[in-house]
Amino acid sequence: VNPKQAASEKAASYVQDGMTVGLGTGSTAAYAITAIAARVRSEGLKIRCIATSHASEELARKNGLIIAEWHRVSRFDVTIDGADEVDPAYRMIKGGGGALLREKIVASSTDREIIVVDQSKLKPSLGAFPLPVVVVPFGWQRTRDRLEAMFGCEITPREAVNGEPLVTDDGLQILDLHFGGPLPEVDTLEATLKTIPGVVECGLFTGLCQHVIVGHLDGTTHEFFPGDPFTF
Amino acid sequence: VNPKQAASEKAASYVQDGMTVGLGTGSTAAYAITAIAARVRSEGLKIRCIATSHASEELARKNGLIIAEWHRVSRFDVTIDGADEVDPAYRMIKGGGGALLREKIVASSTDREIIVVDQSKLKPSLGAFPLPVVVVPFGWQRTRDRLEAMFGCEITPREAVNGEPLVTDDGLQILDLHFGGPLPEVDTLEATLKTIPGVVECGLFTGLCQHVIVGHLDGTTHEFFPGDPFTF
Repeated sequence: VNPKQAASEKAASYVQDGMTVGLGTGSTAAYAITAIAARVRSEGLKIRCIATSHASEELARKNGLIIAEWHRVSRFDVTIDGADEVDPAYRMIKGGGGALLREKIVASSTDREIIVVDQSKLKPSLGAFPLPVVVVPFGWQRTRDRLEAMFGCEITPREAVNGEPLVTDDGLQILDLHFGGPLPEVDTLEATLKTIPGVVECGLFTGLCQHVIVGHLDGTTHEFFPGDPFTF
Repeated sequence: VNPKQAASEKAASYVQDGMTVGLGTGSTAAYAITAIAARVRSEGLKIRCIATSHASEELARKNGLIIAEWHRVSRFDVTIDGADEVDPAYRMIKGGGGALLREKIVASSTDREIIVVDQSKLKPSLGAFPLPVVVVPFGWQRTRDRLEAMFGCEITPREAVNGEPLVTDDGLQILDLHFGGPLPEVDTLEATLKTIPGVVECGLFTGLCQHVIVGHLDGTTHEFFPGDPFTF
């Protein structure tokens, strides 16, 4: 069993009839979308969804899920998404999949953000994984310079397969900040980043996770809630 | 004489041979672009420019100015732009023209940001003019709701002539926050706005003006520098 699949199926069990559901992006979220759609079909649940990327929306539609219009959605009951790192304070780095901006917009309007991971994503501190920062294409080279001057770490533009800067679903670009160790000033880092004009969002998520589900290779899962230590 | 034109011509006199020049957006900036181009033609100045909107870039090219590529520009020597309000601390509200994001990106890499206004734009405090906030289209209705909950003021989406939400040169949208009086907590307002995912930038410019030129109806101008009171 894939640990992410086992945990995604557990996460999908929290979706109930009548709910508005946020759909994450990435390989883990894809398992969750498939699992939610299977429940909708087998149990006749009536739910509506908003996806955090074109890719997830396409997968959801293909599996028969109903995509809602934003002007009819005020809150999400549940959102299921993955993460690249989760620390003991339930802070996360997200954005390896490039959808962090939409993921954060949805997470910040969600009552129960369920984060599905395998055990390797639980870290004593964040920062071994590069921190993605979404930037405006106009003048992005100068935004990169200012981030470099601010943090002194290596910064690489996220590239598409053709070697050009990747353009996100929102027409923006991503710079990966390689801290290579614990993030500096993690409590104020997001605000500091956003003082630079051209910075739109960053992949540091704080206070946006209400539930963690960890999948294991044997198909079992563990569930954790903010305040719980990660113990098995 | 149009006061903005007189002041724009004075501003253009600060452009020197060899400079990298930022071009603002709006009616005032258009006068400045025309005046800079006239000097380039008559005096043979060699300068290169980056414009803060497609409209300004088009006007600049039409007038024979050379548009630089961002990867060859590290700083701007001079940028000339307009403003909707300027207060005695040289803070500004900009963005009536919808280009505030690019204007702020350029201003924040500029050594001498020259702001050209007529006398009516000098205000004891900012906020009678609506504060524009640039937002990501994805979920903008929820971003608006969160701004409303935060400030309790009327918020209107900037619209194009067809009544649809205006899409900026960066593919983003603008919400106008109608405080109708002095901005609340002006020193922390920008950081507070940017805590909301989906907020990209705001039209409050702090510490980004190095020189104000005020034009008068009789064609005269007054020049002011941060620290100077606005007296005639």
